[in-house]
Amino acid sequence: MKLKAPVNVKWIANFINAELIGDDSINADGINEVHKITPGDISFVDIEKYYARLLSSEASVVIMNKVVECPPGKALLITKDPAGSYVKLVKHFHPFEPATKMISDTAVIGEGTIIQPGVFIGNHCTIGKNCVIHPGVSIYDGTTIGNNVTIQSNSVIGGDAFYFNKRDNAELRYLKLESCGTTIIEDDVEIGACCTIDRGVSGITIIGRGTKFDNFIHIGHGTIIGKNCLFAAQVGVAGKVIIGDNVLLYGQVGVSKDLVIESNTVVLAKSGVGKSLPGGKVWFGIPVQDAKDKMEELVWVKRIPELWDKMKTDY
Amino acid sequence: MKLKAPVNVKWIANFINAELIGDDSINADGINEVHKITPGDISFVDIEKYYARLLSSEASVVIMNKVVECPPGKALLITKDPAGSYVKLVKHFHPFEPATKMISDTAVIGEGTIIQPGVFIGNHCTIGKNCVIHPGVSIYDGTTIGNNVTIQSNSVIGGDAFYFNKRDNAELRYLKLESCGTTIIEDDVEIGACCTIDRGVSGITIIGRGTKFDNFIHIGHGTIIGKNCLFAAQVGVAGKVIIGDNVLLYGQVGVSKDLVIESNTVVLAKSGVGKSLPGGKVWFGIPVQDAKDKMEELVWVKRIPELWDKMKTDY
Amino acid sequence: MKLKAPVNVKWIANFINAELIGDDSINADGINEVHKITPGDISFVDIEKYYARLLSSEASVVIMNKVVECPPGKALLITKDPAGSYVKLVKHFHPFEPATKMISDTAVIGEGTIIQPGVFIGNHCTIGKNCVIHPGVSIYDGTTIGNNVTIQSNSVIGGDAFYFNKRDNAELRYLKLESCGTTIIEDDVEIGACCTIDRGVSGITIIGRGTKFDNFIHIGHGTIIGKNCLFAAQVGVAGKVIIGDNVLLYGQVGVSKDLVIESNTVVLAKSGVGKSLPGGKVWFGIPVQDAKDKMEELVWVKRIPELWDKMKTDY
Repeated sequence: MKLKAPVNVKWIANFINAELIGDDSINADGINEVHKITPGDISFVDIEKYYARLLSSEASVVIMNKVVECPPGKALLITKDPAGSYVKLVKHFHPFEPATKMISDTAVIGEGTIIQPGVFIGNHCTIGKNCVIHPGVSIYDGTTIGNNVTIQSNSVIGGDAFYFNKRDNAELRYLKLESCGTTIIEDDVEIGACCTIDRGVSGITIIGRGTKFDNFIHIGHGTIIGKNCLFAAQVGVAGKVIIGDNVLLYGQVGVSKDLVIESNTVVLAKSGVGKSLPGGKVWFGIPVQDAKDKMEELVWVKRIPELWDKMKTDY
Repeated sequence: MKLKAPVNVKWIANFINAELIGDDSINADGINEVHKITPGDISFVDIEKYYARLLSSEASVVIMNKVVECPPGKALLITKDPAGSYVKLVKHFHPFEPATKMISDTAVIGEGTIIQPGVFIGNHCTIGKNCVIHPGVSIYDGTTIGNNVTIQSNSVIGGDAFYFNKRDNAELRYLKLESCGTTIIEDDVEIGACCTIDRGVSGITIIGRGTKFDNFIHIGHGTIIGKNCLFAAQVGVAGKVIIGDNVLLYGQVGVSKDLVIESNTVVLAKSGVGKSLPGGKVWFGIPVQDAKDKMEELVWVKRIPELWDKMKTDY
Repeated sequence: MKLKAPVNVKWIANFINAELIGDDSINADGINEVHKITPGDISFVDIEKYYARLLSSEASVVIMNKVVECPPGKALLITKDPAGSYVKLVKHFHPFEPATKMISDTAVIGEGTIIQPGVFIGNHCTIGKNCVIHPGVSIYDGTTIGNNVTIQSNSVIGGDAFYFNKRDNAELRYLKLESCGTTIIEDDVEIGACCTIDRGVSGITIIGRGTKFDNFIHIGHGTIIGKNCLFAAQVGVAGKVIIGDNVLLYGQVGVSKDLVIESNTVVLAKSGVGKSLPGGKVWFGIPVQDAKDKMEELVWVKRIPELWDKMKTDY
């Protein structure tokens, strides 16, 4: 996310009680987790194997837990708890704003849009024209919804990312990285009943134009879905996945995090996608393989007893 | 669905701007998708391989995209976009009626029934006696619920069917076939929390007497479930499935569309049902096979290394 | 559950119209299903193979469907329908209390806790300090929630157990064993959107301190989850499971009822756990096996055609 105005790194160092190394004239204008860094950002790293990635990233300010040489044009903020410091900054610049009513006064709702009873719309949301939002839908702060979008009952749009900093020996093992990202639902999207679409940790979750979701679809934080996709019921897609256009996921398919599924892919029911998939093919299995190969494999498995018998009798 | 009064086909031709072939004195009294046609209906077809099916069906009026010879006693309405014309008719005769309050004034609620706070009940719904409807349940228009039914929190009854007309080269690939069907929950049914039971596209979804659903059950449009079935959590059943009585589906089972599962069937956890199942047997696997065969197969798979070794050493 | 005051067995015999055998001076002070019996309890048994278990349990009063010799210090209540009698007692001593508003006047809510709009809180619930309960969450009667707990939208806490008494030849095959148990969510727990955590039938469902749930998690009745566990989206855990600390369940995992999963276990995505698991290992598959063994098995299966060819050509 971008800050409302640039903030000098000396102020940040003081705020999170960190040692400042490097260019103390730097002004940061955004906060982002490692996957979403843009120039001017504050980010953090606390695992040695990712130090180099952050130090060579476009981040202006890197919060980290080791003193290293500062690359030019950056500032480093050294602290024992970079994740905790990052969360402190997110909470300061993007505090949770409790709602006072079911539909925020800050909501902008387009002409012809029907908001059924019992819908919650948080702060700073925009909903386009000719949408139907059915009862019990919960739309978190900062969500943008296009035109001609239908959302069936009890779906949740823009919920917190499921994203934690692991602390191996702490009494509390998981520190929540507070979400400051958002969610965009493009035009002509249909979202079924009881779906959950999480917002980005610091980036944006996007559901592309004309895409249709059946019931119980789960979309993780920061995942980007293309246009005209069709997901059958109970499909789950983890965080930071990129899915192209015209992708067809059959019922109960699961997709692991950080993958790319290219356009025109079909994944058959109950499959588990654990790797990126090139476009235009049909996949099946746990883990997925080419659907035709998988079908043949199912036949081969049934022939094991025959193979066994053959070996005994023929030789 | 049936219309409130018969409508002459000339009026329909004019309304959807179609060419009329055949008997122009015909009055239609219903609108139904292909799977649910009854005499007097208007229906549509836009794929060549289904032309014969529609022309020999009991439909009185067939909207289609090719000029053919009209069978006696029927009228054909020729247009470039039969699905779009069908949707236009459904929207005209069965318009969405926005709600003005959480419980419609048109709802009929039986004696002894407890409606907890935060329940939505749409227009023209009937709920029987001695039911308990827990908070956050959303009951769409036209739903009928029997006596002694319990619905746990945040379930959605009668949501829109997930049913689209595919348009291969259009900017918007999927045209939603607006649902005008309904949902019937018979007596003594228990529906868990966060379940979704979609209504029929133009027909009826039925949950039979005494059937019990755990949480997160998904039932697709027009599916008919028999009596005294038990579905464990996270089971998904697609649209237009017919399930008999006393069927037991264990947790996370998935059932594909258009199948029949006969009475007294048991499907073990996490299985995928992709074909119709005769009654009285136990099934397991993705895709399902006889459970005993599947268990044996699992043992055979573990013996492959042994088979390999045997081949190497014995021969 | 414990009763508010001890009740003499003669009153109980009269109330459920049962024949009393044994010590008629006994006062019972609790009602529990077989898995949760503590001294002083009323319980029931209607299946011959469990008679001995109940008669040697700590129950003070056993409702059963056969006349047997009464063990010392107990009372037996003989009736044709022990389950029905048990349900009658639960309903009498723990009647459902319909709510009159979204947040019960009996709710105790700690300092700093934010209850967003549209949240339902039933009777006799306690919520700790600094929690955030998002819109549409439904918290059933008797739930206890600790400090620093976040619950995302539309989750359901403390819903009825999915637990039935089967009656093979009855018109209604399943008699619901009404839940009189409760639910405890400990400090620092995060519960995602659209999760369902059922309360115990007569005992307690517990989510341990620091545990984090993604969206669509289902936890069955009476299940006890340890500390610092992490469950990815769409995981389902059946009733009466015991899970240790630091257990990691990946997306769409299913766990059958009555199992124990020891601490530091990891179960990979889409797996089905059908047996108890010792701690500290990684598991995969349907049904689960050691993950390394399963990965090797997947490779072996792909070698079947090679094995077949080898047999044909080498010998």
